[in-house]
Amino acid sequence: MAQIAARLGDKSSNVLVTRADARAAEMVKARFADAEYFPLSGAVRVWRDRTIHGKGKIAVVCAGTSDIFVAEEAQVTAEAMGNQVEAIFDVGVAGIHRLMNNRDRLLEARVVVVCAGMEGALPSVVGGLVSAPVIAVPTSVGYGASFHGLAALLGMLNSCASNVTVVNIDNGFGAGYVASLINRL
Amino acid sequence: MAQIAARLGDKSSNVLVTRADARAAEMVKARFADAEYFPLSGAVRVWRDRTIHGKGKIAVVCAGTSDIFVAEEAQVTAEAMGNQVEAIFDVGVAGIHRLMNNRDRLLEARVVVVCAGMEGALPSVVGGLVSAPVIAVPTSVGYGASFHGLAALLGMLNSCASNVTVVNIDNGFGAGYVASLINRL
Amino acid sequence: MAQIAARLGDKSSNVLVTRADARAAEMVKARFADAEYFPLSGAVRVWRDRTIHGKGKIAVVCAGTSDIFVAEEAQVTAEAMGNQVEAIFDVGVAGIHRLMNNRDRLLEARVVVVCAGMEGALPSVVGGLVSAPVIAVPTSVGYGASFHGLAALLGMLNSCASNVTVVNIDNGFGAGYVASLINRL
Amino acid sequence: MAQIAARLGDKSSNVLVTRADARAAEMVKARFADAEYFPLSGAVRVWRDRTIHGKGKIAVVCAGTSDIFVAEEAQVTAEAMGNQVEAIFDVGVAGIHRLMNNRDRLLEARVVVVCAGMEGALPSVVGGLVSAPVIAVPTSVGYGASFHGLAALLGMLNSCASNVTVVNIDNGFGAGYVASLINRL
Amino acid sequence: MAQIAARLGDKSSNVLVTRADARAAEMVKARFADAEYFPLSGAVRVWRDRTIHGKGKIAVVCAGTSDIFVAEEAQVTAEAMGNQVEAIFDVGVAGIHRLMNNRDRLLEARVVVVCAGMEGALPSVVGGLVSAPVIAVPTSVGYGASFHGLAALLGMLNSCASNVTVVNIDNGFGAGYVASLINRL
Amino acid sequence: MAQIAARLGDKSSNVLVTRADARAAEMVKARFADAEYFPLSGAVRVWRDRTIHGKGKIAVVCAGTSDIFVAEEAQVTAEAMGNQVEAIFDVGVAGIHRLMNNRDRLLEARVVVVCAGMEGALPSVVGGLVSAPVIAVPTSVGYGASFHGLAALLGMLNSCASNVTVVNIDNGFGAGYVASLINRL
Amino acid sequence: MAQIAARLGDKSSNVLVTRADARAAEMVKARFADAEYFPLSGAVRVWRDRTIHGKGKIAVVCAGTSDIFVAEEAQVTAEAMGNQVEAIFDVGVAGIHRLMNNRDRLLEARVVVVCAGMEGALPSVVGGLVSAPVIAVPTSVGYGASFHGLAALLGMLNSCASNVTVVNIDNGFGAGYVASLINRL
Amino acid sequence: MAQIAARLGDKSSNVLVTRADARAAEMVKARFADAEYFPLSGAVRVWRDRTIHGKGKIAVVCAGTSDIFVAEEAQVTAEAMGNQVEAIFDVGVAGIHRLMNNRDRLLEARVVVVCAGMEGALPSVVGGLVSAPVIAVPTSVGYGASFHGLAALLGMLNSCASNVTVVNIDNGFGAGYVASLINRL
Repeated sequence: MAQIAARLGDKSSNVLVTRADARAAEMVKARFADAEYFPLSGAVRVWRDRTIHGKGKIAVVCAGTSDIFVAEEAQVTAEAMGNQVEAIFDVGVAGIHRLMNNRDRLLEARVVVVCAGMEGALPSVVGGLVSAPVIAVPTSVGYGASFHGLAALLGMLNSCASNVTVVNIDNGFGAGYVASLINRL
Repeated sequence: MAQIAARLGDKSSNVLVTRADARAAEMVKARFADAEYFPLSGAVRVWRDRTIHGKGKIAVVCAGTSDIFVAEEAQVTAEAMGNQVEAIFDVGVAGIHRLMNNRDRLLEARVVVVCAGMEGALPSVVGGLVSAPVIAVPTSVGYGASFHGLAALLGMLNSCASNVTVVNIDNGFGAGYVASLINRL
Repeated sequence: MAQIAARLGDKSSNVLVTRADARAAEMVKARFADAEYFPLSGAVRVWRDRTIHGKGKIAVVCAGTSDIFVAEEAQVTAEAMGNQVEAIFDVGVAGIHRLMNNRDRLLEARVVVVCAGMEGALPSVVGGLVSAPVIAVPTSVGYGASFHGLAALLGMLNSCASNVTVVNIDNGFGAGYVASLINRL
Repeated sequence: MAQIAARLGDKSSNVLVTRADARAAEMVKARFADAEYFPLSGAVRVWRDRTIHGKGKIAVVCAGTSDIFVAEEAQVTAEAMGNQVEAIFDVGVAGIHRLMNNRDRLLEARVVVVCAGMEGALPSVVGGLVSAPVIAVPTSVGYGASFHGLAALLGMLNSCASNVTVVNIDNGFGAGYVASLINRL
Repeated sequence: MAQIAARLGDKSSNVLVTRADARAAEMVKARFADAEYFPLSGAVRVWRDRTIHGKGKIAVVCAGTSDIFVAEEAQVTAEAMGNQVEAIFDVGVAGIHRLMNNRDRLLEARVVVVCAGMEGALPSVVGGLVSAPVIAVPTSVGYGASFHGLAALLGMLNSCASNVTVVNIDNGFGAGYVASLINRL
Repeated sequence: MAQIAARLGDKSSNVLVTRADARAAEMVKARFADAEYFPLSGAVRVWRDRTIHGKGKIAVVCAGTSDIFVAEEAQVTAEAMGNQVEAIFDVGVAGIHRLMNNRDRLLEARVVVVCAGMEGALPSVVGGLVSAPVIAVPTSVGYGASFHGLAALLGMLNSCASNVTVVNIDNGFGAGYVASLINRL
Repeated sequence: MAQIAARLGDKSSNVLVTRADARAAEMVKARFADAEYFPLSGAVRVWRDRTIHGKGKIAVVCAGTSDIFVAEEAQVTAEAMGNQVEAIFDVGVAGIHRLMNNRDRLLEARVVVVCAGMEGALPSVVGGLVSAPVIAVPTSVGYGASFHGLAALLGMLNSCASNVTVVNIDNGFGAGYVASLINRL
Repeated sequence: MAQIAARLGDKSSNVLVTRADARAAEMVKARFADAEYFPLSGAVRVWRDRTIHGKGKIAVVCAGTSDIFVAEEAQVTAEAMGNQVEAIFDVGVAGIHRLMNNRDRLLEARVVVVCAGMEGALPSVVGGLVSAPVIAVPTSVGYGASFHGLAALLGMLNSCASNVTVVNIDNGFGAGYVASLINRL
């Protein structure tokens, strides 16, 4: 980790480390005094260049508070790659009005990332509300028949909304990365 | 089948045969001229007693037109057991406004049956809209990673709405049956 | 936890916390001196209102002593929601006489919750004995080919008794919650 | 098939062919005029030696009428191997009284074979009623989450009755064979 | 089908029917003399409007000739939605030079769709060659341990290339649809 | 545990506790000075009655030294139930001569218990060597694609030897128990 | 097929077509009068060059007669690639003496291919008898818990013999191909 | 461990211990002062005989740095068995040029071992580049839908390159062992 942190110091672009525990985060901070640590997701970010590359906003949406650890990873990634991110958290489908109240913010986004565990239903509903591409991230949130995110993963792969694609369970980084690529187009 | 049909003739309650193909349906009709055949679900019903036993309405909801074969089985069962059924079909989550437009009809129901294939997200959304018990029926509609209804089944078991219980894949009969028991309470 | 406990203090209805470990339970107790802690299930309950809302009894049944951690969660939930609960524990199918000896208590219930691990056979037997709706809760009790409750879950979904619906593995809360909804009808 | 039938003719012990369709059965009959065909299971049996080798009775039990195709294979096998078989069919756990009414016949058996599909709960209940060894045969009867007999198989492997062992899905032959070995001891 | 075809006639945008068999295709042709039928994928397309909406090219890549049935669906969809499509077929990873020879065509694409069955490795290799977003489509091509596309699906979800998102097995339509959305940005 | 140990003291038959860790074993020893502890399997046994009830020998066979923890449980159980046990350990199929060298000991057994992990092949080979009933116990020994004993379990259920039945993964107790029942016949 | 057959005509090496049905085989025969058709495996072979390239013998072993359809594909492939093949069929582990009687033939082989379905135990036993590399081919032979060859596949991957590698279910071609590569070394 | 180490001392061939933790490694070192410990893989090796038995080189390839723990086990094994090993690490498919830059080293190998986790695509690409036999080792590297190596395992079993065989997840030892056997031919 110390070696990696050392090597990172020579670059001029933003630094992003994912899934760091507190100790790894300290190592990065020892090297970069201005490193931000996001303990929920384990992301560590060092700003070098705050240029906005994205042509619009990326919305990062999540279903429950326990999904934030993944949504935060997506958000931190997308921001580090030069995007404005609109975070819309805790809007799960069992309280559909909370989602509906955020409809305008969703419609303003050029790309949408949706993180959800348990039944993983949120991407389908969001996909139906917007015409932008939706990147769905199943999370490992749940117990029993969630099988560590498998239920949400299968649900998202079978989404009845045609604008949904899927990344691996808990892969907030991948979702933020692809959203950034799309938002630069 | 002929034997079964013959034996059915001696009873005074309504007759319900499920998953009958056209030929089996003909045998029942040969015995009961007034038998109704529902080709989507394969249900055959003969009315003997139209007394209403249910204390309120049962809503039977389904996500897409391809789920009707299951929803119809639930509806025909619940009606044969003496219930008024409100059928709310083709209100899948990717077009959430269609569901929202039926919110009043949902709220009037004492019990709700929700049938959905693919990602199986509808019961969670409905469960959030109503306070009545929701019986979720995963359907085998879908392909690929739906694994013949497994995706929908897992989704429903992990519903974030607390008022949802689940029956077997394509088990419209069971859902209609339990809804009837509850509606008599 | 402390924040949650603080916020809970402003409500006039009963307080229920599920899956709390001993330390979380202490936090709730620090806020509410009269909080009850149920260490098997991790439930914490604070009475504010002991009105009975349920129109009849809810029976909570479990197969073995190792299933009590789930059954207790169902019981505590149903009681907190204003129901009289009849607890019938340790009546697994391999000693069918113990179940049969409790038949009258089962028949008196308006709704039945049945918790079982391993082969998950109990809901089918109970479902055949009563005409009330049965909510089956698979538990993660077992080893090897129980696959953390999957065997019991699949068994319950395939119950040959038509009055059985199923919730997620170890979801005693959900079963108690739905049973309460039904018992208010 | 014709070759196999020809070769069979030179033996002095009983002939047993399993899973034969009508056409294969005809070939065996062409060779042995007295061959019996059991169309449910596809077994074909030719008696050469009706000596009883078993020291007691073998009970062959099945849950529903749709499980008879497997139970019959077990029965025909056990009889061909020189056993008296007590067939106790259609005694599924959702109607526990039918099973209890046959308790004496079960208790008389030296070995018990139990065939069941769907939730596969019957072996556990029977195992609790008798002290004889119980051989459980999961059947592929069911749909949806029965996954072609997997639910019943897992249930039986997790039986809470200690006297239960299990064979492959639909393997009535194997169950009848092992029961015969045990009954000769 | 006839009804659907009739209704389609009133629209002014391009008509796309997927997974039609020869008979269904005939019905569409009876209504629209200029309908094109693509027998590999079962797509039927009727041109009404040949405006190009996509800002760049979409590359549709597939691994083997047996994956074309899916790739064609993606291509036909993307074209019907107003895109120029570059089809790069039969460039599976076991002959990596064929893929490398098409590198320039890949690099010109604004979005890439990659269809592959069996081990599903192609999206990772393509993802490493381009910086555009890659939409991976597992196909059901394979036998044995491919489990009808599951092997390819899991492989793609675990891609070590960060620019890959995934749709359902054989879902060429979905991939073409999302690629079109992205290409309009 | 202390309570259980206390209650055990009033019985006149042998005491068997399974899967006890060192601390639980100490509690039993505190109550019964002559308790034997078998640390590999976690079995604790207290002799009260050394009568032999079994009519012959039970052979307990295992494939590798890492399977002994299960085989020992079967052996201790069968001995506690009044059987002479012939332990034949470390005779896995990849060194078939070691098994063949023990053929006479196998042939002397009235019942055979075979424990094996990894590919679980040993019961089939043993089943072919003897005509006694074979009870196969899959063990959780292995890694990777053994999936905690699933590979061995599936192998044993598909045994090409007709005299094999199967119990749950690591269920040495169940195998020893059923073997004892059979050996008393 | 006709096109493929036509193209094949221009090559000077042996022609091998796998998994051809009778009709496809006829097309090849129409083009090459001397084509051999192997109906069990569906292989079609046309000799052009009978040079032996292999430095030793390849043994192709299979467990039961129902596995021959795969073993034959391996044999025909290895022969077409210039190897002498020793076919040792129907030597399943439940009759271990049949295998032992062929030990010398096995020991003479430079590479061994072993095909087995059901529990897939044969490669482990063969692997223990020889020091040559063993290529294991799981076959889809079996029913119920064989899950179309999955049980055999998992068994072979967990072989306790260190000289075993595995190919896909029913992939006789792959096994014959790799065996040929090794035998040329 | 101490006993094993003691026994190892009497042999004249190289000593190889796999999957030893630091403490077990110390025990071996206490017995053999010149023992080498490889902490990534847990291998411990003591040289006794450095004779080269392999007729050519074995290439051991891995996809990412996190796969080295498996590749190292294969390398240490192959070296201890008397082979020259060419280690080509960190050449994953998402950076195909790194692999292509090593093509000559690959082509020089007589046997190739390829270790990869996540999507497990590397063996197919390597298999297409060389004509030597390729032994693929899936690793448990990954998260979420990698299911502890299952995704890589399935991918490798479905490789479109015909020269690939597969061993168990993380089984570097087995791959090194078989590669050594082949390299001696």
